[in-house]
Order: sequence, then C-alpha cells, then structure tokens
Amino acid sequence: MTDFRDETIQLAHGSGGRATRRLIEGLFAPLLSNPALDAMGDAASLEVDRSRLAMTTDCFVVNPLSFPGGCIGSLAIHGTVNDLAVSGAEPVAITAGFVLEAGLASSVLRAQIEAMAGVARAIGVPVVAGDTKVVEHGKADGMYICTTGLGRVHERADLDPARVRPGDRVLVSGPIGDHGITILVARSEIDLETDLASDSRSVLAMTRALLDALGPGVKWMRDATRGGVATVLNELADAAGVGVAIDEPEIPVRDEVRGACELLGLDPLHVANEGQFVAVVSGEDADHALESVRSVPGGEQARLIGEITEAPARTVLGRSGYGSARVIDVLIGDPLPRIC
Amino acid sequence: MTDFRDETIQLAHGSGGRATRRLIEGLFAPLLSNPALDAMGDAASLEVDRSRLAMTTDCFVVNPLSFPGGCIGSLAIHGTVNDLAVSGAEPVAITAGFVLEAGLASSVLRAQIEAMAGVARAIGVPVVAGDTKVVEHGKADGMYICTTGLGRVHERADLDPARVRPGDRVLVSGPIGDHGITILVARSEIDLETDLASDSRSVLAMTRALLDALGPGVKWMRDATRGGVATVLNELADAAGVGVAIDEPEIPVRDEVRGACELLGLDPLHVANEGQFVAVVSGEDADHALESVRSVPGGEQARLIGEITEAPARTVLGRSGYGSARVIDVLIGDPLPRIC
Repeated sequence: MTDFRDETIQLAHGSGGRATRRLIEGLFAPLLSNPALDAMGDAASLEVDRSRLAMTTDCFVVNPLSFPGGCIGSLAIHGTVNDLAVSGAEPVAITAGFVLEAGLASSVLRAQIEAMAGVARAIGVPVVAGDTKVVEHGKADGMYICTTGLGRVHERADLDPARVRPGDRVLVSGPIGDHGITILVARSEIDLETDLASDSRSVLAMTRALLDALGPGVKWMRDATRGGVATVLNELADAAGVGVAIDEPEIPVRDEVRGACELLGLDPLHVANEGQFVAVVSGEDADHALESVRSVPGGEQARLIGEITEAPARTVLGRSGYGSARVIDVLIGDPLPRIC
Repeated sequence: MTDFRDETIQLAHGSGGRATRRLIEGLFAPLLSNPALDAMGDAASLEVDRSRLAMTTDCFVVNPLSFPGGCIGSLAIHGTVNDLAVSGAEPVAITAGFVLEAGLASSVLRAQIEAMAGVARAIGVPVVAGDTKVVEHGKADGMYICTTGLGRVHERADLDPARVRPGDRVLVSGPIGDHGITILVARSEIDLETDLASDSRSVLAMTRALLDALGPGVKWMRDATRGGVATVLNELADAAGVGVAIDEPEIPVRDEVRGACELLGLDPLHVANEGQFVAVVSGEDADHALESVRSVPGGEQARLIGEITEAPARTVLGRSGYGSARVIDVLIGDPLPRIC
C-alpha cells in the first residue's frame, strides 16, 4: 500500500490500469478502510441478518452515448449486474443516479432509459430507486449514469482468491476486446470498416451455470472491463500470491480486434470487455466448468486459457506456444479513456 | 401520470420542483415501473429473505465543492444516510461512485474523501464499495459523487402515507433554509455578511429517537432537500390524499435566512435543507414526539408546525396566524440550481 503522490488527477487515473490502482490503493482505500472495502472485490460482501449479500457501484461516462452493440443505458445495467454475477450473486435490486447536461434532447434521454428498462426486464432485476441532477451545458457530455446493485450470494458460492491453488485452471467466457475496439471505432479514433459490436451483455446466466455445476469448485471470478483480462489476472496473481500462466494461442480474439490492436499498438489483453468474465476453477473440474459455460447461449466460445502456477509468484506469464514466454503487465498510461 | 413533453433537459429539471416531478413522473417512473420504484419513497423498500431493507441513491453536483458547514463529500454521506433515516432505516452500508475532472488537484480530492470518511465513521456506516471515472478537463466541475445506501428498517417502523389521517400533526426537526442560502452566499449570488452555515448533518439519531418512542405513531417522514419543506408536504398531500395546514409563525427560520429570502424573492419553504426532516405523527403522540426529537443533541429546535386536515385535499395551506391562509405550492422554475 503506497501513498498517492500524483499532484493532479488525470485521465489515466480512470482507465483501470496502473494509475487507477495507485489512486485506489493510495488514496481511497486507506482513507475509507473497512473489512468489506478492503477485500477489493468487484462487489462488497455484506452479511445482513443471516443473508449473504453483495453490493457494487459503477459510474458510466462512456463516450459516445450509443455505439454498435449497446449504449450507456444498457451498459450501466449490464456492468452492475456483471459485478454482482462474478461475485457469485443474483441481482435483487439496482439503483440509478443520473447527471444530465442541460440542453440534452429528451428523446436521447428517453432512448437511454428505454434501453435500461429493457435490459433490466430481460435480466429480471428491478430498478428500485433513482436520482436525477442537471448540470450546465458543457459539463457532462449528455449524461453520466451511476448504477448500484444489491445481490444475494448463491448458496454454493465460495469465491475467495485465498482458495486459488497451483493446478487450478483459468477460463474465459468468450472473445476478448470487442467493447474497447468498438468504442474506439465509434469515436473515429481508428479508421476501420468493421461489423464489430460491443460485447455488452449480462454474464449472469453463465456465472450461475458455473456455480450450479461446480459450487466451491469455482474459486474466483472477475469481469474483465477497464484494463482488460491482463489487469484482472494481475490482480488475481497479487491477491492470491500465485503465478498465472496463459497460453496465448488459446485466447479467443476476433480477427478485427487483433488487426485493430496491431494498428494501435495495443495488446488485446488490455482492451476492455463488457460481457466477458474470467474464472479460476479447480483443475479436476475444468472440463465440467467449460461444458457448463458453453451450454449457456452466448457461452459457446468459452475457453480454458491457462493455469495457476506456484512460480513466478505475483506474475502473469503469456506462453507463446513455441516455448517462449513474456510477462503480461497491467495497462500503463491511458490509451483508452472514457471506455465505460 | 402525464407524458413528458419537454424537448430538452434544462437546469430546472434538476431543482426538485415541478419540472423535476414532471421528468420523474412522466419519463423515468413509467419506463422503469416496478412496485418498489412506484412507491416513490426517499428509499425503496425491499424484502430480502426475511429482512426488511431500504435502498436509496443520490448524485451530488453541488457547486462550490466546499462551503460553510460542509462539502460535497460530507453532503454525499449525510444525504444518503438521511434518505435511509427518514425511511425508518438504520444504514448498513454505503457505496460511492466518483466522476472526477482531469486536472483536479489531488489535495482537493483527498480533503473530500477525508470528509466522507470522517462523517461515515461518526455515523457508524462503512463505505463498502466505490468506483472512479475521470472525464476531460472542463467537465464535472472538479467532481460529482453518487452515493447509494443500504439500510435495515427499524422493527417498529410502519411508515406509509396511506396511514396519514386528519388530526395527525406535522413536526419539523429545526430551522429551515440554511443549506440553500449558504450555497447561494458561497457562490456570491447574494452579497450577504453572515455566519450562516449549511445544516448538512445526519438526522439519524433524531429519526431513531422518534421511532423508538412512537413506533407506528410515526406515519411518514421526509428530509426536505431540493424543493424544500413545501415540496415534500405537497408530495405528502398528493400521496395521502389529504390536506396539510401549516401554521406559518411556527416554522423555525433564522433571521439571516428570512432576510436573504426576502432579498431574493424566495420562500424559505422552497429552500433546500440538508439536515432537517419533516414527520407526520399521530395527534395523541405529538407532544411525546416533540420531546423525543428535542432530547437528541441538535434536535432542540424541533417544532410542531401544523396538522393534517380532511379538506382541501391534496393541498398545502399556510395559515398566517391572523386568520388568513395561502396555498403553498411546489417550487416552479429554477432559482436554485446545483444546490446538492
């Protein structure tokens, strides 16, 4: 835990990479410290009466507001549902706070709320409370949305990085990088003719299938949003004190995403996803885990992409398939602002 | 329930008055409708397993970030705790989402988080989860904060506007209008030499004392934030289908607030509070209610300010004390933007 010494806040502090981590670990976490927060999960674990609950919050500032495959409204519901899902919880209720920019066309707002309502209805979670503030024109890019989710933890869930052991396997739910590249294309930051769409979706049916099938055989899950798969795997390696070895040829990446990443000098492992998660399952359950996720519509492209190792501890290695390996670090700098 | 026909969103839609209500009732509520949301409380009521929970969310965009008596950080905790408190709940956990402006001095951010942490610690509620996004310089005025609170409902609470009856009495916890006028002075929108400070504080100890003492004798509570006491009383009159008669000479208002309101052409009943609530208690319990609130440090200036009447239904009347009366409507237009 280091002190936060940066003099000002910069866009990089919001990108989910090393700067974000420094801000969170150096400023927010020590000042607000408590057991639930200190666990640094995608959702906080709470016990109320005898119920195991999960609670999570996310702000959405994605630019543009709508893009192929989704919009800020659907993203705000999916993102929060997914944080609950990878925490082993079923969503019970969502709240939504809106910061609206004066001058926003009501039709744009209506379309975003309709998207939220449609997605929430499909998932089966009610939006139980909300708040709306309006700021001057120029201060909010149309709108920012902050959603908070309350969930009830699956009775068989026992997710804890401390339970992760060498020999466990790493599963990813599908092709990575679609969301981040779609946003860059939508912002014309890269000139690409493509049918690519954001993967924005709920992963709840997949995490539920995995927990139903394996129970405590599922040891850890994360959705790979800002900072991508590389970032969540590094967080796992740190939290569990283990190594993570990824077989790079096994990682599902669409050709368009790979091409765009090459043009931009990005690693698909650093690109944000909004509908993919990474899970660590016990070695003996790995095939069963893969089957369970693949049996869910939308999970057909799930893959086992690596394993937990004893050494090098706290390190993520990418194995090329030709015997060589590279260290996969978290995102440094800020090539991808305002992605969610 | 009317359709929302305004073509664009304007500052008035965020001020808590009639335009806000049109936006909420005409757009958000019908699209997102579900039983918990439709109740339109300060917090949503949820039943999880056998626990009665309350959940509420608020965005804070107050300008300036710091002002006499508080800051956006303390306000974000107090506001959410108060929404739980007036819903008859004890706070269990809070989440906080931050939208930060690139270029914000880290020292400013640190001071705000320290304020949040101090206030949360004093109340005894942990901040269990958070999220941070960064937007470009020029947006977000330093920071916006969105807090969400989860609470457990007091076992003796039975708050429901449907239980409000003619003969019930209206209690206010202390002098009104301090917050709104303090913000206007801090923004130099009114040139006033004053020691006035925001009333930003937790009302939890007072609502708890009231519920401990009266249980179901407390029928309805609201904190009088945006739109002020007039707005929450009008919401009560509509929801309960009753009349509310206020004895205007009984309403506690500091001289500085009254003077500023006269200069600005504002009614103190429309000015935002961040540490005062209004309660309806049964007539026979009214004196006991007043004693309970006054026995709490900070509640000494509580007053009984009026009563529930049969007619005129759905109307708030202000009685002058000289036999005359006026209709007290909700705030129209937007004299007080970005107040919380």
